[in-house]
Amino acid sequence: MDSISLMGSSPSSTKASFLPNGVKNGPREGSGKPTVGIIGSGDFSKCLTIRLLRNGFHVVVGSRQPKRAAEFFPHVVDVTHHEDAVGKASIIFLAIRREHYPSLWDLKHLLAGKVLVDVSNNRRVNQYPESNAEYLASLFPESLVVKGFNVISAWAMQSGPKDASRQVYICSNSVEARQQVIELARQLSFIPVDMGALSSAKEIENMPLRLFTAWKGPVLTAVALSIFFFAYSFVRDIIHPYVKSKQSYFYKIPLEMVNRTLPMVAITLLALVYLAGQLAASHQLFYGTKYRRFPHWLEGWLQSRKQLGLLSFFFGCVHVLYSLCLPMRRSERYLLLNMAYQQVHANVENSWNEEEVWRVEMYISFGIMSLGLLSLLAVTSIPSVNSALNWREFSFIQSTLGYIALLIATFHALLFGWKRAFEEEAYRFYMPPGFVVALVLPVMVILGKALLLLPCVGSKLKRIRRGWEASQYHTDPERSAAHVSPERVTIM
Amino acid sequence: MDSISLMGSSPSSTKASFLPNGVKNGPREGSGKPTVGIIGSGDFSKCLTIRLLRNGFHVVVGSRQPKRAAEFFPHVVDVTHHEDAVGKASIIFLAIRREHYPSLWDLKHLLAGKVLVDVSNNRRVNQYPESNAEYLASLFPESLVVKGFNVISAWAMQSGPKDASRQVYICSNSVEARQQVIELARQLSFIPVDMGALSSAKEIENMPLRLFTAWKGPVLTAVALSIFFFAYSFVRDIIHPYVKSKQSYFYKIPLEMVNRTLPMVAITLLALVYLAGQLAASHQLFYGTKYRRFPHWLEGWLQSRKQLGLLSFFFGCVHVLYSLCLPMRRSERYLLLNMAYQQVHANVENSWNEEEVWRVEMYISFGIMSLGLLSLLAVTSIPSVNSALNWREFSFIQSTLGYIALLIATFHALLFGWKRAFEEEAYRFYMPPGFVVALVLPVMVILGKALLLLPCVGSKLKRIRRGWEASQYHTDPERSAAHVSPERVTIM
Amino acid sequence: MDSISLMGSSPSSTKASFLPNGVKNGPREGSGKPTVGIIGSGDFSKCLTIRLLRNGFHVVVGSRQPKRAAEFFPHVVDVTHHEDAVGKASIIFLAIRREHYPSLWDLKHLLAGKVLVDVSNNRRVNQYPESNAEYLASLFPESLVVKGFNVISAWAMQSGPKDASRQVYICSNSVEARQQVIELARQLSFIPVDMGALSSAKEIENMPLRLFTAWKGPVLTAVALSIFFFAYSFVRDIIHPYVKSKQSYFYKIPLEMVNRTLPMVAITLLALVYLAGQLAASHQLFYGTKYRRFPHWLEGWLQSRKQLGLLSFFFGCVHVLYSLCLPMRRSERYLLLNMAYQQVHANVENSWNEEEVWRVEMYISFGIMSLGLLSLLAVTSIPSVNSALNWREFSFIQSTLGYIALLIATFHALLFGWKRAFEEEAYRFYMPPGFVVALVLPVMVILGKALLLLPCVGSKLKRIRRGWEASQYHTDPERSAAHVSPERVTIM
Repeated sequence: MDSISLMGSSPSSTKASFLPNGVKNGPREGSGKPTVGIIGSGDFSKCLTIRLLRNGFHVVVGSRQPKRAAEFFPHVVDVTHHEDAVGKASIIFLAIRREHYPSLWDLKHLLAGKVLVDVSNNRRVNQYPESNAEYLASLFPESLVVKGFNVISAWAMQSGPKDASRQVYICSNSVEARQQVIELARQLSFIPVDMGALSSAKEIENMPLRLFTAWKGPVLTAVALSIFFFAYSFVRDIIHPYVKSKQSYFYKIPLEMVNRTLPMVAITLLALVYLAGQLAASHQLFYGTKYRRFPHWLEGWLQSRKQLGLLSFFFGCVHVLYSLCLPMRRSERYLLLNMAYQQVHANVENSWNEEEVWRVEMYISFGIMSLGLLSLLAVTSIPSVNSALNWREFSFIQSTLGYIALLIATFHALLFGWKRAFEEEAYRFYMPPGFVVALVLPVMVILGKALLLLPCVGSKLKRIRRGWEASQYHTDPERSAAHVSPERVTIM
Repeated sequence: MDSISLMGSSPSSTKASFLPNGVKNGPREGSGKPTVGIIGSGDFSKCLTIRLLRNGFHVVVGSRQPKRAAEFFPHVVDVTHHEDAVGKASIIFLAIRREHYPSLWDLKHLLAGKVLVDVSNNRRVNQYPESNAEYLASLFPESLVVKGFNVISAWAMQSGPKDASRQVYICSNSVEARQQVIELARQLSFIPVDMGALSSAKEIENMPLRLFTAWKGPVLTAVALSIFFFAYSFVRDIIHPYVKSKQSYFYKIPLEMVNRTLPMVAITLLALVYLAGQLAASHQLFYGTKYRRFPHWLEGWLQSRKQLGLLSFFFGCVHVLYSLCLPMRRSERYLLLNMAYQQVHANVENSWNEEEVWRVEMYISFGIMSLGLLSLLAVTSIPSVNSALNWREFSFIQSTLGYIALLIATFHALLFGWKRAFEEEAYRFYMPPGFVVALVLPVMVILGKALLLLPCVGSKLKRIRRGWEASQYHTDPERSAAHVSPERVTIM
Repeated sequence: MDSISLMGSSPSSTKASFLPNGVKNGPREGSGKPTVGIIGSGDFSKCLTIRLLRNGFHVVVGSRQPKRAAEFFPHVVDVTHHEDAVGKASIIFLAIRREHYPSLWDLKHLLAGKVLVDVSNNRRVNQYPESNAEYLASLFPESLVVKGFNVISAWAMQSGPKDASRQVYICSNSVEARQQVIELARQLSFIPVDMGALSSAKEIENMPLRLFTAWKGPVLTAVALSIFFFAYSFVRDIIHPYVKSKQSYFYKIPLEMVNRTLPMVAITLLALVYLAGQLAASHQLFYGTKYRRFPHWLEGWLQSRKQLGLLSFFFGCVHVLYSLCLPMRRSERYLLLNMAYQQVHANVENSWNEEEVWRVEMYISFGIMSLGLLSLLAVTSIPSVNSALNWREFSFIQSTLGYIALLIATFHALLFGWKRAFEEEAYRFYMPPGFVVALVLPVMVILGKALLLLPCVGSKLKRIRRGWEASQYHTDPERSAAHVSPERVTIM
């Protein structure tokens, strides 16, 4: 029974450690580490075995064809029949597929009271009605089923968690069994994350199958916005001149049209980041409490602000790249040469236009500043940079600098448009210029922020976020949280 | 009393884990995990409760109005009166404000000998003369006060440390109490950092309140340099032509003037990074030992080299962006068209100037190389990249590549200036051209490095850094450190 | 003997923790933490002492000249003679150089049965035939020698692992001794990595001495490719026109020639990344199993794909920077002015060339897209971003997006070349244009991928990677791994 005391070393083993020992390597009987059993002799079994051996555990592998399987394992490993393996260990990893769980039915009596670790994965999200681990628990109700290690690939298991992800999610209905497997994970140099009861098994099994779930909404939003703004610009800037004056500007599609779309999407996405926070604030102000849950859609929106912000930065960067490439184009050269020809023929010595010069200088200047600020926001989104910041610093970068970036980007767009919003000819097909459409949301968000900064609104919001409630017991000292920092959810 | 054995599981509980158990979830009596008490029923209390429950602890919450508070807690939690809660647990979190600490005075006898965890934060740095934890310890001298968990927001507490910062700083005068809370933090999947005695509490409480303290000096330096170089260029390049020949170059302010300032600040900051290391080396050479402390200002300067370097890179990047935007400007186009007009009218078939062509090609080429090297330095400053490097690699990138970047940047600036440093008309208002001023420091640093690389100086410095001292016992083998790698402080 | 129970706290000490204690700080007798001995009084000894004190350990330092050494240590530390220090502790750090190990020979009887931690480093890789730790073990066969902590600099040891690398590699032939030191490392807030038997000591000792070993091959490849492509372009584009028509294009060397080399190297490196995976797949298809080891050179190539990919991205970025700088050049301006002169003199009102316009717009557009995709690949290579992705996401980015980037980059190069591959005059000195040479490998890799995507080939490969083998027992359910995710090695 000493095989279960993973945390404390038994007195006898401690004593043993002070005797000189000639064993060069590998696990020994009585080394204080438990024997771990593994059912199955596939890749994962092999890699897990190697890792356990390295950390001083004794491993016994259960296989249907032990002799054949033994060739593939280090010789110190005890490769034996299922029944034998189950009998020798109290923690048993099941490295077989879900379909083969029923084949262990005969060993039910042996498995009773033992810790069974289900490491299996499925091929599709929600492939089965219940999770593999819960299915296993229903088959062997007297065993202590633990889900875990499924997010670790055989490769990462063997090579050790130096480079790849180190987090291992673990859940079980038995607190002790869970704790044992958590400690085992820690000894194998993983970072165990306790996920509570076995009902989390489905979530854990879906983890390695998810594909950028957090990015789906934001990416779809960005794609939809891109299509809308591209179509809008296409109609105004390509179709209109072609219909009205038979001028073919189709060559503008690959660069100019794309480069007109990108900044509009970027600024809209940035405005959406801060709009979510403002809606959350309005919700809190309206209900006079921060303890009422946000509606489902707002919750999701709040959680995808980081992704929206990073997409905005990405679109902004690509916009800069496109803009910088414009002077490299042949079309630019031809237009310039033709302009030079015109100027010479018109005999204009100086074509200088002070207003245009200033407009473009300011326009570029604001654009660079906006990108510079956004790049700071993006850098602090790198997990390891992020975790080096405290809450105040994170909030300063994400909220204060973010709003300033939005403000400057708005000026950038206004300088691009200049007076065109007020010129009649800019309204082709009665459609206002693209930048006017793209600026509606950012301007609204900036005004919203100005409103929230008004002393009367701001101080009420501050009180609410410190735990004050409009209706009830606001004198209870305990409810005014000891913890001053507001929650991250209300950052922006 | 089993509630304190956080590390080892007691025999009885271990036994229990091998019995099949039907409990679906949640903590049970006798599960081997201690009961944790929480005084206060605010946000932090709720989130901490959820986290403790998930990890198998039994939680008892003490509230002034237990019935009302119970609504907000999971039903498995024991929400009760203060006195009752304190009686049931041996580790007690105080999730109330400092102002309410005296209200617990009546429970003094119950709190004696128990571990009290102070999680409170203040609103301002040094809000009170002594830290909250020390104040608590003075109120309850018979309790074991531990400071900790204050850097974790309620939000991060509940959701678990997947994304945000995982480090929890803990201090206490009682080694055992500290160790218990450290182990508790580990079980909640945080990374505990032992900060020693309770006198560190003030430092820990100031942590979440600090706002880029490490950046303050470097940013102020950069701002001061920017103002100086901008003003200098402004007087030389805008005021001088306006005064002398009434030429208005004011349109150059938003882009050209800024873009003239940026590289001067960038190269000065980069030189400052390495100047600090050279001063440290001189200090060591002068006193003939590395065991003498550097003066306070030099210590601070050495510690902010990373920030200076990153700011230098940032200014360099923005300089590149500005430079790349120059051809996009309207002013550029007008000037080019006017030049074409002039060339046609002067009937010059070929305006090619071989020297100018070469100068600019080389100038751009050196600029790109310098930025490329600086970007490598910047990437290795990302914490997770940095921690994947060993000391030799870090030192090679930061020191060797950094000096080469400085050298190339200096060439870049010299090629920009070309012969203008020697032309009389470049000395407007008797002020030398900006690049001459900006190059003084980098050239000094490069010469300083060359000096330190001289065999006679270099070998003496190497010996000093290995522990040799000019005056005393340099034959003691123990003092010549077993650990060959020199300290990071002397990297550059 | 209680000093060895690092993991579990002894009953007496636990009891003590519940007594109020007036000790302000520092370790006390009977605090449940063991006494740690350190032989040597150099830098590392001092820093280790401070760290151990902070974490509640009692420290005894053994020095040849205890009185003199005591000045440099905190007064709570017991600085004494070697013999005395060894007698008082059961874990002893040797902070002296390898050369001084024999000087401890007299204490052999005292050291028997104790844990000796060898923290030493060498100055060169493989400086001695056997590792320092193995040498120590041969001197003191009755002691339990553990290697560890050598990757931590004295500086990082003292300041605590907040910023720098936190991983500590530990190995020993005694499982218990190793486990004790692992636990000690954990208590000092490091992340211990268990490296197994003492035979790993050499590897651990070489760790701090390695200098970008993983980068050596890829960097050499990139340098060789750069030299080849530069020489090739130089002969074709500089020498040829000079020889044939005495035209001097030498001014093109610093920018245009470099910028012609960079993209050719970048696309070749990217193709090499994916070629490795295809060769691995062919190997598996040929032998009909995934259990046969790849040849040594392929193994190495597969492991350096990340480095090759990052270098490709770096070259791509620098290529973009060079390209963007081209319009800033003086040569560009002179050529443009001369063209304007020509156009005016030839009286050509419109020099527009629709085909050329479209070619360049598409060419630039594909280039930007390719860089955008590569930048996503590069960002996910940052360790902390990488570890936030699961296997599917990592594989999607690295494999799917990577191939698309390669495909687009190939189109980018084809659009650059346009019809020149089919023009006779492009074959100067009978050498095909550079882009034709550079595209051979990428086109081959794309065709190879197309082949692997064919249903017949693809499904066989999929089966093999799930554990199926061409020859034997493919009906054994256990060998079809429970773990569906294929190994990382076969990603691309």
